[in-house]
Amino acid sequence: MEKNTSERAVTLKDLAKELGIHPSTVSRVLHSDPDSARGAASEATAQRIRELAAEVGYSPDPQATSLRTRRTQLLGVVVPRLSDLVLAIMYEGIEEAAARIGYSAFVTNSRDDVDEQRRKVEMMLARRVDGLIIGDSHLDGDVLPDLRHRAVPFVLMNRRHPGFPSSTCDDTRGGELVAEHLWDKGHRRVCVIAGEPYASTAVDRTAGFVDRWRALGGDIPDDSIVWSRFDTQGGREAAERILAAGTAPTALFAVNDFAAIGAMGALRTHGMAVGADCAVVGYNDTSLAAELPIPLSSVRSPMAEIGRSAVRLLQRVIRGEPVESVRLAPTLQVRESSA
Amino acid sequence: MEKNTSERAVTLKDLAKELGIHPSTVSRVLHSDPDSARGAASEATAQRIRELAAEVGYSPDPQATSLRTRRTQLLGVVVPRLSDLVLAIMYEGIEEAAARIGYSAFVTNSRDDVDEQRRKVEMMLARRVDGLIIGDSHLDGDVLPDLRHRAVPFVLMNRRHPGFPSSTCDDTRGGELVAEHLWDKGHRRVCVIAGEPYASTAVDRTAGFVDRWRALGGDIPDDSIVWSRFDTQGGREAAERILAAGTAPTALFAVNDFAAIGAMGALRTHGMAVGADCAVVGYNDTSLAAELPIPLSSVRSPMAEIGRSAVRLLQRVIRGEPVESVRLAPTLQVRESSA
Repeated sequence: MEKNTSERAVTLKDLAKELGIHPSTVSRVLHSDPDSARGAASEATAQRIRELAAEVGYSPDPQATSLRTRRTQLLGVVVPRLSDLVLAIMYEGIEEAAARIGYSAFVTNSRDDVDEQRRKVEMMLARRVDGLIIGDSHLDGDVLPDLRHRAVPFVLMNRRHPGFPSSTCDDTRGGELVAEHLWDKGHRRVCVIAGEPYASTAVDRTAGFVDRWRALGGDIPDDSIVWSRFDTQGGREAAERILAAGTAPTALFAVNDFAAIGAMGALRTHGMAVGADCAVVGYNDTSLAAELPIPLSSVRSPMAEIGRSAVRLLQRVIRGEPVESVRLAPTLQVRESSA
Repeated sequence: MEKNTSERAVTLKDLAKELGIHPSTVSRVLHSDPDSARGAASEATAQRIRELAAEVGYSPDPQATSLRTRRTQLLGVVVPRLSDLVLAIMYEGIEEAAARIGYSAFVTNSRDDVDEQRRKVEMMLARRVDGLIIGDSHLDGDVLPDLRHRAVPFVLMNRRHPGFPSSTCDDTRGGELVAEHLWDKGHRRVCVIAGEPYASTAVDRTAGFVDRWRALGGDIPDDSIVWSRFDTQGGREAAERILAAGTAPTALFAVNDFAAIGAMGALRTHGMAVGADCAVVGYNDTSLAAELPIPLSSVRSPMAEIGRSAVRLLQRVIRGEPVESVRLAPTLQVRESSA
């Protein structure tokens, strides 16, 4: 008999059937005082009963049983890809906070593919998770209303979506910080490597930057905003397009450190010195940023804390308590790439 | 009929219904001696019955079909940390290969802590995984003999351990490739940033390098081999120790790209130009290596394939088939950091 992780409690009858022993015997062994239990069955049989009961998590207390068996203490997490360091660190925060409340977490990659996201969500629900943390929400996606309709407990992490609870960085503020920094440094010709338009992280960081830049009196034509993949290759390609388009900018804001590193590679290929000829600022302040040959300025987002806070939010959702989205404050780390 | 991933055992009736054949016929084909089975149905029908039974994991042995022995189609994976890109990519390979055979994978971080590894393994077993892929094996650890003793199906990945099946890169060969490359480039004063001595990856890459270096006629004193953490910070600290010790080397081999990036940072702090003043070679050829301002030479290990091959190995172990460890061949990517 399997350890009981299903919705249904293991009953005495289940144990009795599995063992081929009358339920009353099982009951006496498990529920009576030691003396009465000894009279009910041979020591070997009593031993078999107790072992199976322990193995499948049978509890003689019906209240405890129902509590124990309604919940699996398992949280499902969907992320675009764990090979994105940002998501891997958020997941470390999730695991840590989940362990603290007696939960295990289970993570899977959707590769930012909408069909795959749906499949992975269903797979996790089939595994009977108590709730979901969704780290790959698409602004144009429709999986969230469906989950709400089915009363599945879930929260968003990393990317927000209007109308659903989420734990994220205040990405709009992060973009503003970069605009203020580059403006103060005297830059006037800037471009944004904006990321994927379906991700709120990309949209908010870009909008925060552009709105603040214009509020400061700066000019930033729409063709200076280049959407891209979030990885190094995507950043390199976006920078190549910017450099091919004509007048080179004096500063680039990439909404992700990996895209920034790709852009640094492209600048270098074109004989431009990062920092001196063109400033570069990234986002997330991953552990690499400070260690690069030309250290990268980057907006620090509290990645692990975003994960931990998602767990706390989800715990409230599972309990049926009201929740509000959490926006954690970013800070800017200025380094040689934009000093 | 779907592969049986539910809590409920597949019954004869289920098979019969799916096939549109009377249960007694299904029973005779599956449960009788060969002669009686032959009389029950045509060979084609018997074949269909047997195929479906195999596909859905039906077992004619009532003891075996008991809940205890049912498969969950769930694989547990333990890694040091998913924020190590190498492990995140291996896990992508695992997920892909697992999905192909109808399995889901479940990954957890042990932070390379022996107690945490043991706790995480027990947590996964409590979740009734069908088998484990262990990516954080310690050469001096004792969890593996215990798992074998308990007949838990498992394989190692990323790090090998003598006497247990594993899917890894041929790390000894990888170290040799770096020794040959640096020797050919004329370097004679080299140091190794060797990683953690409990990890076979570190030990094998270092031994491969040192043994080949000495075979080529090179000299490498023991104090030129510095053990370190696998991350950028660890690489930086190791390089600092090397540079503080006296005569600077003309080349550094770091057994991990992140440690190599940290070492590049330390060289830069000391006013040394990576490539010109001191060559640097890393290991794993993560996607960043080619995109760095000074592109990093690195040993390419087939990370995703190591993950996929671990799943195939584990599938054989679960079936009780004999297995042999897999060592996948590395190649060296030479770039500006050591050209």
